[in-house]
Amino acid sequence: MSIAVIYGGTRPHGNTETLTKHATQGVEVEEIYLNNHNILPIIDMRHDVEGVQNRNDDYNAIIERVLQHDTLIFATPIYWYSMSGTMKNFIDRWSHSIRDNNFPDFKADMSNKKAYVIAVGGDNPSIKGLPMIEQFKYIFEFMGLEFKGYVIGKGNQPGDIHADKVALFQAEALREELRVK
Amino acid sequence: MSIAVIYGGTRPHGNTETLTKHATQGVEVEEIYLNNHNILPIIDMRHDVEGVQNRNDDYNAIIERVLQHDTLIFATPIYWYSMSGTMKNFIDRWSHSIRDNNFPDFKADMSNKKAYVIAVGGDNPSIKGLPMIEQFKYIFEFMGLEFKGYVIGKGNQPGDIHADKVALFQAEALREELRVK
Amino acid sequence: MSIAVIYGGTRPHGNTETLTKHATQGVEVEEIYLNNHNILPIIDMRHDVEGVQNRNDDYNAIIERVLQHDTLIFATPIYWYSMSGTMKNFIDRWSHSIRDNNFPDFKADMSNKKAYVIAVGGDNPSIKGLPMIEQFKYIFEFMGLEFKGYVIGKGNQPGDIHADKVALFQAEALREELRVK
Amino acid sequence: MSIAVIYGGTRPHGNTETLTKHATQGVEVEEIYLNNHNILPIIDMRHDVEGVQNRNDDYNAIIERVLQHDTLIFATPIYWYSMSGTMKNFIDRWSHSIRDNNFPDFKADMSNKKAYVIAVGGDNPSIKGLPMIEQFKYIFEFMGLEFKGYVIGKGNQPGDIHADKVALFQAEALREELRVK
Repeated sequence: MSIAVIYGGTRPHGNTETLTKHATQGVEVEEIYLNNHNILPIIDMRHDVEGVQNRNDDYNAIIERVLQHDTLIFATPIYWYSMSGTMKNFIDRWSHSIRDNNFPDFKADMSNKKAYVIAVGGDNPSIKGLPMIEQFKYIFEFMGLEFKGYVIGKGNQPGDIHADKVALFQAEALREELRVK
Repeated sequence: MSIAVIYGGTRPHGNTETLTKHATQGVEVEEIYLNNHNILPIIDMRHDVEGVQNRNDDYNAIIERVLQHDTLIFATPIYWYSMSGTMKNFIDRWSHSIRDNNFPDFKADMSNKKAYVIAVGGDNPSIKGLPMIEQFKYIFEFMGLEFKGYVIGKGNQPGDIHADKVALFQAEALREELRVK
Repeated sequence: MSIAVIYGGTRPHGNTETLTKHATQGVEVEEIYLNNHNILPIIDMRHDVEGVQNRNDDYNAIIERVLQHDTLIFATPIYWYSMSGTMKNFIDRWSHSIRDNNFPDFKADMSNKKAYVIAVGGDNPSIKGLPMIEQFKYIFEFMGLEFKGYVIGKGNQPGDIHADKVALFQAEALREELRVK
Repeated sequence: MSIAVIYGGTRPHGNTETLTKHATQGVEVEEIYLNNHNILPIIDMRHDVEGVQNRNDDYNAIIERVLQHDTLIFATPIYWYSMSGTMKNFIDRWSHSIRDNNFPDFKADMSNKKAYVIAVGGDNPSIKGLPMIEQFKYIFEFMGLEFKGYVIGKGNQPGDIHADKVALFQAEALREELRVK
C-alpha cells in the first residue's frame, strides 16, 4: 500500500493535521499540503472548442503525485460545514483532468484507489459534518474510488482534538488498517 | 427590498446564470460575479495574536457591496455535489469578516438578511444536491440569515436548463416573491 | 405502464392524498391505502432456523397487488421528518418477502419497477424532508428500483396544499410523465 | 440522572441491544422494549373536532414511564436505512400526546430531557444511517430535547457487533458520560 495524505487546511499544526498524524503515525505516507501550492479555481471550458484550459499553476504537478499512490486520505478542516475552499478547488479541477489528454487514464487510474476522509470541525461536527461526508461519498462514487471510512473530530481552539477520545481511538483503528495492508 | 445576486459559476451564460436571470427578470438586482474578482482562500489565523490577516484581494470590496442589500441570492453551479470552490472560498472568508474590526457588526448585519439558493447540476441534482442545501441551511443558521427557499435545476450541456420545466416554474414563483416584497 | 399508488397516510383526504390525486388525475392507477389494512411490524427472525415468520395479517395480499404493477408511487405524509410509521412497517416487511419461499423472485421482480415519492409536511419540508428522500433513495437502490422523481409539498391544515403552487406544478409535470409512458 | 432506554428492535439479544447494554453496563436504567407492547399507528385527527383519538393500547402507559426520566436513549436497529417501524409508530404518537389534555405539559416536560441514539445496521451504516441521525436531530429540536450524541454500529449476523471496535469504544465513552452525571 502506498498512501498520499492530501491536506486542505490553512493553519499549520491545526486539529485536522494533528488527528491525521495520529492516524498515520509510524506509517509511510506522502504528505501534500495544498495550502503550500498555488491551485487556481477551475475555469469551466468543458463545452468550448478549445477544451480544457491549462491554468499554469501547481495543480498538474500535485495530481501527478496523487496518482502514484493507491490509497488517498483527504484531511480537511470543516469550514462552514464543508471541506475547505482550498480542498474544493483542488477537487473541482478533477473535471479538467478527466478531459485532459495529458491524463488519458485519469478516471480509470483513480478508480483503482481507496479513500479515507479525516475532518475536524467546531460546531457539532458529528452531525453538521454529515452532508460533507455524503458529498465525499458521491465524489468517490463518481470516480470509482472505494470509500473505506472516515473520522470526524471535534475541535475549535488549537489542541482541542486531544480531548476527543473517540476520534483519537478511531484514528488508531484507522492506523492499524493502514499498517496491515 | 434590495437584492444582491452572488454568482459562483465560472462559465459565462452557464445554466445556473440562465436560471437565475429567469428568476430575476424584471427585478432590480445587483449582480456580483465572483469569478471576475480575485478572492483568495482564507488563511486561518483565528488563534494567532496578529488575528485576522488582510489578504489584499477583492474580498472586502465585495463583502461591502453584499452588506448593502437585504436579500441575497447565492447562485452556484453544482460542482462535485457542492457549491463551486470559488463560492466556497468567498464564504470561507466570512470567518475573517466576523473577526475583522473593520466590520464590527458583520454578523449582526448579515442576520437581518434573507437568503435564497439557485443551483444547477448535471448528476441527479434534486437528490445529490441535497447535502449542499443542508450546508447552506447550516451556514445561514449560523449567521442568522433567513433561508427563504431554493431552486435546483438540472443541466449539463449549455442551454439544458430550458428543458427543466419545473425549475423554470420555481424560478418564476421566486420572481413573484422577489417582486412583491 | 401499470401504476400502484401506496398511501401511507392516516387521515382521509389529507394533503398528501390531495397532491397525489392531483398528480394521477385522469391516469389509471390502483390505489392501496395501507391504513385500511392490518400490517404488523416485522419480527426479525432472519437468523433463526424457522426463518421468516408469517404474521397472518394483510401484508402478503398487499404485496401481491403491488407486484402486479411496474410503477410504484409512495405517497406519505411527513410525520416527524420521515415517512409515516404505517408506511415504514410496510417497507420493513419487505425483509420478510426477500426471504419468503412464497415470493422466490421478490427482489428481482421489484428491481424491474420504477418508483416515485409524493410527500407533504408542515415544518419546512423542502429542507427537513430531505433525509427521508435520501432514505427512499437507499431503499430503492437496495431493491434495484429506479427512483424516477419526487414531489415534496407543504401543508399542515387540511387543504393547505392548494396554496403550494410549485408542488401542484410538479404534480402536473409528473402527471404528464405518467400519461406518456 | 435517571435514564430510560427505549428499544425499537424486534429480535431478542440483537446487535443493537448488545451494543446498548455495553453502553449502560453498571448504570441504572429503566428498559422499555417497545416490541413487548401494543403500540398502534397514529390516527391523525389533529384537525377534527373530536381531537386526539385514544387508541386504547399501551402507548400512554409507556409514555408515562418515559416522562419519569431526564435522559432518554433511543436504541433502534437500522431497518431500511431508518429507525424500525415499531420505533417510528411510537414517535408518531407523540403528536397525540402534544394535543392530549391528559398530558398538558408533554412538550415542556420532554424539552427538559437529554437524548442519545444507539443504532446498528448492516449496510454501510456509518454513511447510510446518517439521514436517520438527521431525522432524530430534527425530532429532538422540535421537542426541545438536547441531542447529546449517538453511536452507530455495524452488524448483520447475530454477534457481529463484537467486531466493531470503534462502536464498542464509543459505547464505553458514552457509559462514562452516563455514570458521571
